[in-house]
Amino acid sequence: MVGSAARIVGLGRYLPSRVVHTDEVARRLGVDAAALASATGVHERRYADRSGHETASAMGASAAREALEKADIRPESLDLVVNASGTVEQSIPDGGALIQRALGLGKSGIASLTVHATCLSFVAALDLVSSAIAAGRYRRVLVVSSDIASAGIDWSDPESAGLFGDGAAAAVLVRAEPLGAEGHTRDVATGSRFLAARFSTFGDDASLASIEGGGTRAHPNDAALRPSQNLFHMEGPRLLRRVLGRGRPFLEALSRELPDGVRLADALVIPHQASEAGLAMLPAFGLDASRVVRTLERLGNCVAASIPLTLYEAVESGRLRRGDLALLCGTGAGLSLGAIVFRF
Amino acid sequence: MVGSAARIVGLGRYLPSRVVHTDEVARRLGVDAAALASATGVHERRYADRSGHETASAMGASAAREALEKADIRPESLDLVVNASGTVEQSIPDGGALIQRALGLGKSGIASLTVHATCLSFVAALDLVSSAIAAGRYRRVLVVSSDIASAGIDWSDPESAGLFGDGAAAAVLVRAEPLGAEGHTRDVATGSRFLAARFSTFGDDASLASIEGGGTRAHPNDAALRPSQNLFHMEGPRLLRRVLGRGRPFLEALSRELPDGVRLADALVIPHQASEAGLAMLPAFGLDASRVVRTLERLGNCVAASIPLTLYEAVESGRLRRGDLALLCGTGAGLSLGAIVFRF
Repeated sequence: MVGSAARIVGLGRYLPSRVVHTDEVARRLGVDAAALASATGVHERRYADRSGHETASAMGASAAREALEKADIRPESLDLVVNASGTVEQSIPDGGALIQRALGLGKSGIASLTVHATCLSFVAALDLVSSAIAAGRYRRVLVVSSDIASAGIDWSDPESAGLFGDGAAAAVLVRAEPLGAEGHTRDVATGSRFLAARFSTFGDDASLASIEGGGTRAHPNDAALRPSQNLFHMEGPRLLRRVLGRGRPFLEALSRELPDGVRLADALVIPHQASEAGLAMLPAFGLDASRVVRTLERLGNCVAASIPLTLYEAVESGRLRRGDLALLCGTGAGLSLGAIVFRF
Repeated sequence: MVGSAARIVGLGRYLPSRVVHTDEVARRLGVDAAALASATGVHERRYADRSGHETASAMGASAAREALEKADIRPESLDLVVNASGTVEQSIPDGGALIQRALGLGKSGIASLTVHATCLSFVAALDLVSSAIAAGRYRRVLVVSSDIASAGIDWSDPESAGLFGDGAAAAVLVRAEPLGAEGHTRDVATGSRFLAARFSTFGDDASLASIEGGGTRAHPNDAALRPSQNLFHMEGPRLLRRVLGRGRPFLEALSRELPDGVRLADALVIPHQASEAGLAMLPAFGLDASRVVRTLERLGNCVAASIPLTLYEAVESGRLRRGDLALLCGTGAGLSLGAIVFRF
């Protein structure tokens, strides 16, 4: 996929209307609010109204509509809808079909599927989709990350309960070559393209960040099921130690895959907003803090939606402009490290 | 991906040891066994021992070991492990990491992720993976479908309860070009490659085959949750009607994407083993029943594992030989239709 002619032509987001301040979370947890905000890095986050209209697919479709409008692409002209969320709305069918339906495309026949790599689902999806576009298999692809993390918060665990928020973000990818009548000839001039991607998983650390339930291992109807098995469990300090040793060699290997003359140090860094401690590690990996875009304070850790939500803000704020180099990177349960470099 | 130089070099499977005859299922359902076998097409199926060693990832790893041995590829030389199951073992992390760990690769850093498109997950994964191989992004990829459908059977619904079985199957894909020292030069001569793929989703029919629970819509810890929401729900007759109208145009469109001189009528048909009624529709779509491979009688509907399990048997029995044309096709909750054509 090096030099893949895929480019992002539109971004969108949806934020649930309910803003939850860390004061409220701290009261529920019975801890000091200032200490919690300092430990997590999160001052406020959104929680979806799951009983109302804020389902994951509705949120994702809302983000997708903005992305499609910005891309000036009609939903009907997509040829693939990818759900790239870290949480699921329901077991079957997968979220791709649900987002397609929520977008009003439920009779279209447009291909829909899900790519799941927990918090790195968006990065994993871009990796596969940019390859599929490079191979000529798809031409106009919608990638949507929509996560309702609040449903799985373990309120007995302040370490993780203060971190999570809900949100959705979407990106539209197209081939950079001219597409005939609709014309994207300008795209070639900007040099927009995907340059390198890397993904690395260490399954022996799977238990360091997990939700045991929701599947066939601890099925929701099992008599022996404990409610805590359906909640997010994290061993933060061990997780951080495992990432700390792996981040630098991972990024060095990624650097070696970049075309000549392209330097990771020139990229705007759009990381997963895992936690304050997670973001604090980036300088140790050779990434300059001044080039790191943050949304953690206002949005919390939105699972797979965090990276595209941060990318959205980078573009909207003017920090990432056409022709600029961007690095999306992060860690996810797995334990996985993932990154993708592109010229926006 | 037309003409993608990816090829399947090894296949493996794992079948749970417990064989469940339709007599036993019929007794539990309180229906006539002969009538149930006739209606579903299933005479026996396997149920995994979930309380023991037969987790989805363990089953998947077992199938993967056979596939890797047959491919003569060391697990450590893989560069991607894809979980392509229709059911999940646990919510987080995704099954890719769990299968990687179960294969003894948990310290390897080999990339792992999940592609989910319910019963068509294997087809969707081959589609994306063959494109990624064509684009040069990955070279040696393991795709694993491991499904424990028995955990989600609704025993109040004979229509679907008699259909499902558990099983796992795996495939190893590589670039067909010579790979240097290890040498796959023979591969080029056989002409093995992926020729065309098509995927089509109709989200408005999402409710015709579903499990509402397991996610944020009807969370396992929700007070209002009904156990039936965690079980598979199917509206069989409506589902069949929706597929009936769409199958032929879908396959005709797929045919048009094939290279000159390649005819779908020459392909061995390896369909999803949805049900007797599902398989009975294939001739109406122009697929000759004599060219259709069946495992439904002995294995039931194994969700996403059905297609690779049937492919495995086609190869092991000698029905599919190197150089032969194969069509993998089926339907899945979504509602989706999916197909991929390759020269084996």
